[in-house]
Amino acid sequence: MKTEIIAVGTELLTLSFRDTNSLFLTERLRGLGLPVSFRMQVGDDPVDLKKAVRAALGRSRLIIATGGLGPTTDDRTREVFAAALGRGLVFDAAILARIRERFGRRGLSVPPSNRKQCYVIEGAEVLENPNGTAPGLWIETPRRRIALLPGPPRELEPMFENQVRPRLAAVASGRRLIGRVLRLTGLGESDMESRIKTVYGAIPPGVGIVTLACPGDLSIHLTYEGRAGRAEAEAVLDGVQRRLEGRLRPWVYSRGGQSLEAVVGGLLRSRGRTLACAESCTGGLLGHRLTNIPGSSDYFLESAVTYSNQAKTARLGVPPNLIARHGAVSAPVARAMAAGIKEASGADYGLAVTGIAGPAGGTPRKPVGLVYIGLAHERGVSLDRNLFWGGRETVKFLSSQRALDILRKRLIKLP
Amino acid sequence: MKTEIIAVGTELLTLSFRDTNSLFLTERLRGLGLPVSFRMQVGDDPVDLKKAVRAALGRSRLIIATGGLGPTTDDRTREVFAAALGRGLVFDAAILARIRERFGRRGLSVPPSNRKQCYVIEGAEVLENPNGTAPGLWIETPRRRIALLPGPPRELEPMFENQVRPRLAAVASGRRLIGRVLRLTGLGESDMESRIKTVYGAIPPGVGIVTLACPGDLSIHLTYEGRAGRAEAEAVLDGVQRRLEGRLRPWVYSRGGQSLEAVVGGLLRSRGRTLACAESCTGGLLGHRLTNIPGSSDYFLESAVTYSNQAKTARLGVPPNLIARHGAVSAPVARAMAAGIKEASGADYGLAVTGIAGPAGGTPRKPVGLVYIGLAHERGVSLDRNLFWGGRETVKFLSSQRALDILRKRLIKLP
Repeated sequence: MKTEIIAVGTELLTLSFRDTNSLFLTERLRGLGLPVSFRMQVGDDPVDLKKAVRAALGRSRLIIATGGLGPTTDDRTREVFAAALGRGLVFDAAILARIRERFGRRGLSVPPSNRKQCYVIEGAEVLENPNGTAPGLWIETPRRRIALLPGPPRELEPMFENQVRPRLAAVASGRRLIGRVLRLTGLGESDMESRIKTVYGAIPPGVGIVTLACPGDLSIHLTYEGRAGRAEAEAVLDGVQRRLEGRLRPWVYSRGGQSLEAVVGGLLRSRGRTLACAESCTGGLLGHRLTNIPGSSDYFLESAVTYSNQAKTARLGVPPNLIARHGAVSAPVARAMAAGIKEASGADYGLAVTGIAGPAGGTPRKPVGLVYIGLAHERGVSLDRNLFWGGRETVKFLSSQRALDILRKRLIKLP
Repeated sequence: MKTEIIAVGTELLTLSFRDTNSLFLTERLRGLGLPVSFRMQVGDDPVDLKKAVRAALGRSRLIIATGGLGPTTDDRTREVFAAALGRGLVFDAAILARIRERFGRRGLSVPPSNRKQCYVIEGAEVLENPNGTAPGLWIETPRRRIALLPGPPRELEPMFENQVRPRLAAVASGRRLIGRVLRLTGLGESDMESRIKTVYGAIPPGVGIVTLACPGDLSIHLTYEGRAGRAEAEAVLDGVQRRLEGRLRPWVYSRGGQSLEAVVGGLLRSRGRTLACAESCTGGLLGHRLTNIPGSSDYFLESAVTYSNQAKTARLGVPPNLIARHGAVSAPVARAMAAGIKEASGADYGLAVTGIAGPAGGTPRKPVGLVYIGLAHERGVSLDRNLFWGGRETVKFLSSQRALDILRKRLIKLP
C-alpha cells in the first residue's frame, strides 16, 4: 500500500523550518510496517494544495495530511480534500458543543472563525482533539484511507497515537518491518563504506542497509521488510549485523540507536564511577550533553567551563606560567585541566577539553580546529591531540564527541 | 513561475532524517525571488520517482532535483528525467576524462559503476562537480527549467551557488522578495496572535506575515513580494513592523533574526560588561549557547556547572545548611549561586539557574519544571521563579532562554 504524507502550511516553504510532523509520522508509520513512499510539503495556496492532493489521490492509498485545519481563512485542507473526493461538508453540532465548552471554561465565547472547524467531510469520522480546537478527520473509501490531522505537534502526536494508530494497525496486519541502528564515531564515511563493501554484496532478501553520516557521527540503519515471523526476521538482521560489526567493531558505540552520552552514562552507572569535566572550547556542551540523560546526577558531578585563563587557574589550579609558556591550547594545559578537575571534584574521572573553535584565534602553528583532550583516570592522565575541520559549532561538537568516546573506550575495558 | 524541489533518496523516507538540501535550496531560491511552491521527498524506487517527476512536470516550471546521481544502481534520477522528458541519454567522454583524472590522482582506476555518471540527458548542459564524481545537469525547455544536482551537501551547495544561481538570476529578474524576522520570548503563541490580530486586518498588498512558535521562542516572518523598488519595499515592511512592535515591544529581542545569545552577547560587548554563570539544571547549556557566538571570550568568563550539591558549596560558596534547609532548588540557593559565581569570577554579572528538569525528582511542592533564576548585578541579586512545562530538554532550553532574557532586559536599561 503506497503511503504518502502531505504537510500543509506556507511556513514549511518560506523558512528554514523543520517539518517535524512528517518525521514523526514517517517513523511511526514504519513502526506499523507502512513505509512512506511520498512526502510532500505544500503551502496554503488552494490551487497548489488541490494539485498536491490530486497527485496524492492518484498514486497513494494511505494519505496522512497535517495542518490547515485551523480557524483562519488560510486553513483549507478540509475544503480541498472534500472537493477532490467529490464530497460535501456538513455541519457537526457536537464539535461546536465541544469548542464552546473549551472556550467556556476560560469564560470566553466561541469566535465566529472557529465555527469553520465544525464542518466535516461527508462520511468522515471525527477524530477528537483534546489538546486544541481543530478536530481531525478519518475517511475510508473502497481504495483509500485518509487522515487529516492538525498541525501543532502537541495536538497531532496524541491524535495519531490514540486514534489513527489503532485504525492503521488493522490495515497493516500481516507485514513486518523491523529495524535496528548501529552508531559509530571515529572513522570517516568513505572509510566505513570501503570496510563494509563486501557485506553489501550478500544482503539477504528483504534486508535494507542505509548509512548516514554527519561530522563525527555515522549510523547504519538495518531494516527487514517482509512476511517472516519476528524471530526469523530478527535472526536475519542478527546475521547482517554480525558481519558489519566484524569489520567495524572499534568504532561502534551503540547498537540500539542510543546517543554517545547515553552510552557513556550507562557505563559510568554500571561501573559505579563518577565524572567531572573541565571545558574550554566546548563551552558547556559536554556538560549539556551529559545532563540531557535523565538520572545523570547519579554519576555526573560538575563541569568547570573555564573560558578565561584566570578561571583555568582559579578553578582547576592550572599554573599561570604553564599557560604563559605553552598557551591555553596545549597538551600540558589539557593535562593540568584534567588532573585539576579530578582533584577539585573528587570524581573518578576528570575529562578536559581545550582547543580553538574559531573562526578567529588560529595561527599557523595552532590552527582553528586544534583540540587537546585530557582524561585523568585511576592510572594518570592520558592525552589526545586532534585537528578538526569545520565551523565553530562543528568543532565544538566534534570535540565533545571525541572526548566522550575516549572516556567510553576507557570504561569498556573496566570490569 | 511555480517552483518545486524534489529530494530523491530512500534514506529521506526511512529515517528521522533531516532533508537539509531542501531547506538550503528553499532559502536560496527565496533570496532570488523564487518562492518554492512544492517540496517533495521520494525514495529511489523508479516507479515512485517517475510518478513524482511526472507530477512535478505537470505543475511546476522550475524544478530542482537533488540526489540519485551517484554511481550505484539505486541512482536513477538521470534516467527517470530523461524518460519523462522523452529524451535519450548520450555518453559524454569529457566527464569520463575528468573522473579518470580524479581517480588517477589517487593512483586508482575508474570503477565500472562510475561510467554511469558519464551519461547526459540529450540537450542538457553539464554542471561540473569539483567536489565529487557526479556532475549535475541543467535542462531548458520552452516552458521549463530543470536542475539535477548531487545529494551530498558539500557537492550540491557550491554547484548551486556557482552554476545554478547565475542561470536563475536571469530567470528571476524584475521580481523582488525581501524579508525580515522579529524574534520574541516570554509570551505564548495565542497571546501574541491576539495582540497582533488587528495588524492582520490591514496588511498592504504584497506583504506576508507568518508566525512560528516553538516553546520559549516565537518568530514573526515578514515578507514583501512584488515589483516595487528596494527602498519602497523596505518602507512597506517598516510600516508593518512598526505596528507589530507597537503591540509586542516588551517581548521582541531581535529584529534581524539573531539568536537570543547573540543579542545578549552584543549587549555585553557594547556595554563593556562581563558575565559568569552558575548552572545546575541547565547542565552547561547556558555556557554552550553563549560560547556558540564567535568572540564570546571577550565577555564570557566561565560557567560553573555545579550539578552536585557538593560542587555548589565548593565552587560557589553556597552554605551546606542553606541547601539542607531549603533544598538545592529554591530561591535562597539560586540567589547564593548567583552571588557566589559573581564573586568567585570577578564578573560584572552572575547568572544562576537551579531547577528540576525531570522526568524524575519532582514532588507535589516542587514539581518538575520548577526553576529559579538568580541574577547578581551591580545593585544586588534579583530572583525569578518559573514553572515550565515540558520534557527534560524543553525545561533545560526554557530555563536557558528565560535566564538570557532576564540578563537582556537588565542590559538594555544600561547606557
